[in-house]
Amino acid sequence: MERTFRLVIACPDGVGIVAKVSNFLANYNGWITEASHHADPKVGWFFMRNEIKASSMPLDVEAFKIAFSPIAKEYGMHWKISDSGQKKRLVLMASKESHCLADLLHRHHDDELNADIVAVISNHNDLRRMVEWHDIPFHHVPVDKDNKQQSFDQVSEILTGLDVDLIVLARYMQILPENLCETYAGRVINIHHSFLPSFAGARPYHQAYDRGVKLIGATCHYVTEKLDEGPIIDQDVIRVGHNHTIEDMVRLGRDVEKNVLARGVRYHVEDRVIIHENKTVVFS
Amino acid sequence: MERTFRLVIACPDGVGIVAKVSNFLANYNGWITEASHHADPKVGWFFMRNEIKASSMPLDVEAFKIAFSPIAKEYGMHWKISDSGQKKRLVLMASKESHCLADLLHRHHDDELNADIVAVISNHNDLRRMVEWHDIPFHHVPVDKDNKQQSFDQVSEILTGLDVDLIVLARYMQILPENLCETYAGRVINIHHSFLPSFAGARPYHQAYDRGVKLIGATCHYVTEKLDEGPIIDQDVIRVGHNHTIEDMVRLGRDVEKNVLARGVRYHVEDRVIIHENKTVVFS
Amino acid sequence: MERTFRLVIACPDGVGIVAKVSNFLANYNGWITEASHHADPKVGWFFMRNEIKASSMPLDVEAFKIAFSPIAKEYGMHWKISDSGQKKRLVLMASKESHCLADLLHRHHDDELNADIVAVISNHNDLRRMVEWHDIPFHHVPVDKDNKQQSFDQVSEILTGLDVDLIVLARYMQILPENLCETYAGRVINIHHSFLPSFAGARPYHQAYDRGVKLIGATCHYVTEKLDEGPIIDQDVIRVGHNHTIEDMVRLGRDVEKNVLARGVRYHVEDRVIIHENKTVVFS
Amino acid sequence: MERTFRLVIACPDGVGIVAKVSNFLANYNGWITEASHHADPKVGWFFMRNEIKASSMPLDVEAFKIAFSPIAKEYGMHWKISDSGQKKRLVLMASKESHCLADLLHRHHDDELNADIVAVISNHNDLRRMVEWHDIPFHHVPVDKDNKQQSFDQVSEILTGLDVDLIVLARYMQILPENLCETYAGRVINIHHSFLPSFAGARPYHQAYDRGVKLIGATCHYVTEKLDEGPIIDQDVIRVGHNHTIEDMVRLGRDVEKNVLARGVRYHVEDRVIIHENKTVVFS
Repeated sequence: MERTFRLVIACPDGVGIVAKVSNFLANYNGWITEASHHADPKVGWFFMRNEIKASSMPLDVEAFKIAFSPIAKEYGMHWKISDSGQKKRLVLMASKESHCLADLLHRHHDDELNADIVAVISNHNDLRRMVEWHDIPFHHVPVDKDNKQQSFDQVSEILTGLDVDLIVLARYMQILPENLCETYAGRVINIHHSFLPSFAGARPYHQAYDRGVKLIGATCHYVTEKLDEGPIIDQDVIRVGHNHTIEDMVRLGRDVEKNVLARGVRYHVEDRVIIHENKTVVFS
Repeated sequence: MERTFRLVIACPDGVGIVAKVSNFLANYNGWITEASHHADPKVGWFFMRNEIKASSMPLDVEAFKIAFSPIAKEYGMHWKISDSGQKKRLVLMASKESHCLADLLHRHHDDELNADIVAVISNHNDLRRMVEWHDIPFHHVPVDKDNKQQSFDQVSEILTGLDVDLIVLARYMQILPENLCETYAGRVINIHHSFLPSFAGARPYHQAYDRGVKLIGATCHYVTEKLDEGPIIDQDVIRVGHNHTIEDMVRLGRDVEKNVLARGVRYHVEDRVIIHENKTVVFS
Repeated sequence: MERTFRLVIACPDGVGIVAKVSNFLANYNGWITEASHHADPKVGWFFMRNEIKASSMPLDVEAFKIAFSPIAKEYGMHWKISDSGQKKRLVLMASKESHCLADLLHRHHDDELNADIVAVISNHNDLRRMVEWHDIPFHHVPVDKDNKQQSFDQVSEILTGLDVDLIVLARYMQILPENLCETYAGRVINIHHSFLPSFAGARPYHQAYDRGVKLIGATCHYVTEKLDEGPIIDQDVIRVGHNHTIEDMVRLGRDVEKNVLARGVRYHVEDRVIIHENKTVVFS
Repeated sequence: MERTFRLVIACPDGVGIVAKVSNFLANYNGWITEASHHADPKVGWFFMRNEIKASSMPLDVEAFKIAFSPIAKEYGMHWKISDSGQKKRLVLMASKESHCLADLLHRHHDDELNADIVAVISNHNDLRRMVEWHDIPFHHVPVDKDNKQQSFDQVSEILTGLDVDLIVLARYMQILPENLCETYAGRVINIHHSFLPSFAGARPYHQAYDRGVKLIGATCHYVTEKLDEGPIIDQDVIRVGHNHTIEDMVRLGRDVEKNVLARGVRYHVEDRVIIHENKTVVFS
């Protein structure tokens, strides 16, 4: 794949934004390979993502930032420019269940994720061998029920050294403390094994079974301090019936979970997600 | 379609039930065209539906009932036998929105529902012309906010005269009073315009929009005294994104609502649904 | 809904197109409510659709055309500008089966289609009463197997007088003659009751049944001289199994057909489809 | 999971079959945990699968066979009885692409497949390390374009020694010779990366791209001498649009392929599939 720059913008809506941005790009001879726009009339904001051939512009990312700043200022933009050649650095966190972790590791192995997995952190040692087969460092940080602070201080320390772009909770099953949520706001993705907002919290498949729903699902969302209430990136469902036990639901749900999580990770890695208030714009 | 008997059974699970029932049928030369079984190990119950060519047995429904009673007693069965030649009698209740009503009326017109629609009751007059085109009696019963009891007494009176097998709330938008729920327990189907248990109650599409979900849905369920908490018959979803307004969701949701409701009605009409506790077995 | 202009463009790809177009719009103070772009690197073409608040620009459609022409010329654009306030004129063609026709008529009745249905043409009289209930002229043009030319001359004559934007073959079951395909190229939509290219031609549900597929589908496409080979606008499928007869497939397929057709019609009516070679770009 | 016997039957339809079989089971005190029936009126055959608690019957599989034989003979049954405690023996065949293989290996690792993977055979060496991590023997049998017979003789020899219940072509990309198809008839499953019968043969995603379909799919089927024409076990699809390149389709398709293949394998392993003529009955 050709190297691209990704220019992602959110700003109050108005006349002339697209013109301004596309003029800027055209003036530097920028060849747009993909452009996505969204105007939200309810909140009065405008969202935009441009993917530009890196080779078509005489600027690198730093020079681009300097050149574009005046426009960004004029329109009150929240924005970023990223370089597809600069792989994002991912840390995966898991517990004992392997399906989401194994899936992401294999996609990485298959060169499907355009990202580096720089570490896996787990509160159990079960998945060490699987991770190390992929030549990825595995950190075992047990979470002591009575001293979670200490455990998460250790997690925090590991993360600090890794220059992390995204933390993926691949069925980590522990609640991140508030300070980590804040430090990594917008950079922690979780997979919840229900179709949120239904069945938040513990044992969602049991809840689904008891309610007798005919579809079960999974939700990939950014983590905030409020458990299972962060901005949703993607969701999917699968049909179930009276003949499915809870164990069947767990099994069927695994396939939904890993696919939804993989999509969410991909969208983030490719800078396709913009968080606005508690919702997302996903230029998929 | 050939005329069939439908024998539907729920009883505590055990050895020999299928043998007993199928022997009974075989002794009367009953030709089984469709058979569905379900054993629920969690509650220890067994559920069964047999569809038998009516012409293959020398019994009519009444004689069948007498002959089968001893077996039913022996196994503590909840059971019924119905005759596909005896069309179920449906009453549809609607408000102003026409999509679910029009859909059911057209399926009836197309001979897709094996049922008679014997009346439509509405709290508004808007849909009268549409209903009357189908030569179906239309009853306008306004619901007075300050005297709902009176309105529903009138509804109740209409229903009483009609020998109703199923009441379908086709986006009726009014809450049925407790006494109607009780009288017609297991015979009132509602379509709720969300993927329950998410977004119960009022304005579910607005709730869905505000939460930023990526799929919206509809749920067809039996009505009980607890609003939107009755046994679920069927559900479905459709994908939405940041670009969809609430109006778009309402529009997209309509197609899901009418299809889910039509399926639920069909399952009920064909005696494919067994309610057990607050869940359903659906032999679809 | 607010009145908008829709500017739809296809042209050889290159640097500066978006800048040029968005500058043009910004110079006239055009407020973009929706913008979609697509660059196809394989064929080297660029596709674009802008929806602009009509009230934000001091131009009407005619003045817009004149003002924009030099840009269009410079970039070798195939383009059009349309006014959402100018309702498209639809002619529906049907045979005896009513589900697609009834669905479109009801969406029209519900103000869901932003279009006028100016006539229905059928080779049978069966659906006359349904159409006339909607106050839409119904033309009965029998198709004589031995003199199709004459029948289609009559159809052609009716169409000529109606200033048609789109002809919808809503299960018309007759093959349009080549001259009509040519005259109305890009303006005739058909619904085929299979997931094309599987099961083109006659009796697709029978073909699907015989092959034992586990999903059946429907395809909405533009009509060309080559039967069932025109550019596909939309498709969808539904799950079937060994327990479904051909009759079940026909019934289940109806719901897919009408939804896919309705989406295809909507996309066309809102100028969301661009035909390029034998494929479509659909800015849905 | 509790150990069960699975009794799978296909025979000409008639009155009394269910009674006969369920009496037999009841006489031996067999506790039925799952029962599925299907009568196909078009071909006049009856299909049946019973799952029975092994502990409830005083028979082992061999004794069951002897006891049941007279009934089977009487009704002209094609039938088998299997023991869930006797794990099926699977051989996977792959080429260079790893997604289907890795998926099945991981499901095996996760104890999701109730089967043993006794060997992997590949015409390339690329996946050796992945397979051997799972402690599964890896056989590299290169396929020489000019001497395929020799290669497949070697494959045949390996298979002969392994007492194989099922061969899974997990994107093997080679056509099995006729003699292998015959020897292992009904025991070879392939995943084809299209929604068959569309795009049989080579490079189906390229074919799909060129035709401009809006959904791509995958098909799991039994292998017969006729390429891509064997009985279909399962299929699924995923939505694509004008913005997806062939590479995107390949990537998106991978998730469909592996899920459909895993379902097909599961159905076979659990004796849920009956082949009849060129179609399948799948009691899923």
